Amino acid sequence: MQALIDRIVRDGKNLGNGILKVDGFINHQVDPALMDACGKEFARRFNHVGATKILTAEISGIAPALTTAQHLGLPVVYARKHKPITMPDQVFLTLSPSHTKGRIVELIISPEYLAGGERVLIIDDFLATGATILGLVRLAQTAGATLVGIGALIEKTFEGGRALLAHLGVPIESLACITSMEGDQILFAP
Amino acid sequence: MQALIDRIVRDGKNLGNGILKVDGFINHQVDPALMDACGKEFARRFNHVGATKILTAEISGIAPALTTAQHLGLPVVYARKHKPITMPDQVFLTLSPSHTKGRIVELIISPEYLAGGERVLIIDDFLATGATILGLVRLAQTAGATLVGIGALIEKTFEGGRALLAHLGVPIESLACITSMEGDQILFAP
Repeated sequence: MQALIDRIVRDGKNLGNGILKVDGFINHQVDPALMDACGKEFARRFNHVGATKILTAEISGIAPALTTAQHLGLPVVYARKHKPITMPDQVFLTLSPSHTKGRIVELIISPEYLAGGERVLIIDDFLATGATILGLVRLAQTAGATLVGIGALIEKTFEGGRALLAHLGVPIESLACITSMEGDQILFAP
Repeated sequence: MQALIDRIVRDGKNLGNGILKVDGFINHQVDPALMDACGKEFARRFNHVGATKILTAEISGIAPALTTAQHLGLPVVYARKHKPITMPDQVFLTLSPSHTKGRIVELIISPEYLAGGERVLIIDDFLATGATILGLVRLAQTAGATLVGIGALIEKTFEGGRALLAHLGVPIESLACITSMEGDQILFAP
């Protein structure tokens, strides 16, 4: 998606070690018009998969998942990383290594909002190692739901996430696909 | 706002001790159409204040802040509770007691995205004790920005937040105003 690529080129920063800073429009400050355009594009690409629910992980997945949900007319559930006091004692919980935090995080969903029979479209900000998305897939499977697609704003192909998720047999879409971050460059797939 | 009140009546749960569970449409599962309507209503109420930026706190403030930002055509910044590796060493940080977490949390904003001269509209999910919102106000003031308004989806008048914020002299708007949660009831202001 050219508008997102252009924005990464303009305002993204390669901090080294494969870390892309997009805090100015996705991860801290959010550009609502860009996020709406991304949601519209995800809706176009996943219109045919028959999703009944969007699933994401707090925190940075919320904005793109919400705008996608707006365009598809579906509810969105964001997995919590800490169980709030409003959640029942029996939950779906999985552990997921966080690349950017350097530790294991919990991903928690209440069975109240993810049921068997649901058709789940996962939307997140990054597809890098695929670990967080795979954690969301495990939660959906535990709930008895069917995974129907995976979308990420930004894919870093050199971290191998797509290969990790390929066996799931669902469409995987990214709106900006980065193939290399050697030096201070950011190279995109053609 | 009647649509939000109706939804709280239908799907909200009074868990006792003043805790209102709205996980089915705000805090875990999000209803994008309702959230869009709330953002539109905030935009209508705050259209005159000349805001240049929406400010909120992760996690549950993101959805209503984003939809408000969409309708006002403004960027939104969400204060982080943990400093990510992409943030510079010099940040705006304040401590805020979290009612629902029973501990002190950090609220952190990068100076890159909140500058002197900004006119800040704060949007959050709840106005209860007002502690989180007051933390956001301190961050805005530290940045040299001007506070121009405060909006919350749900206000619990019996927790005194509005009185705590009154000295700020800005419009405070809530879309559903709960006056009592005695027993298992949820009573709204007329």
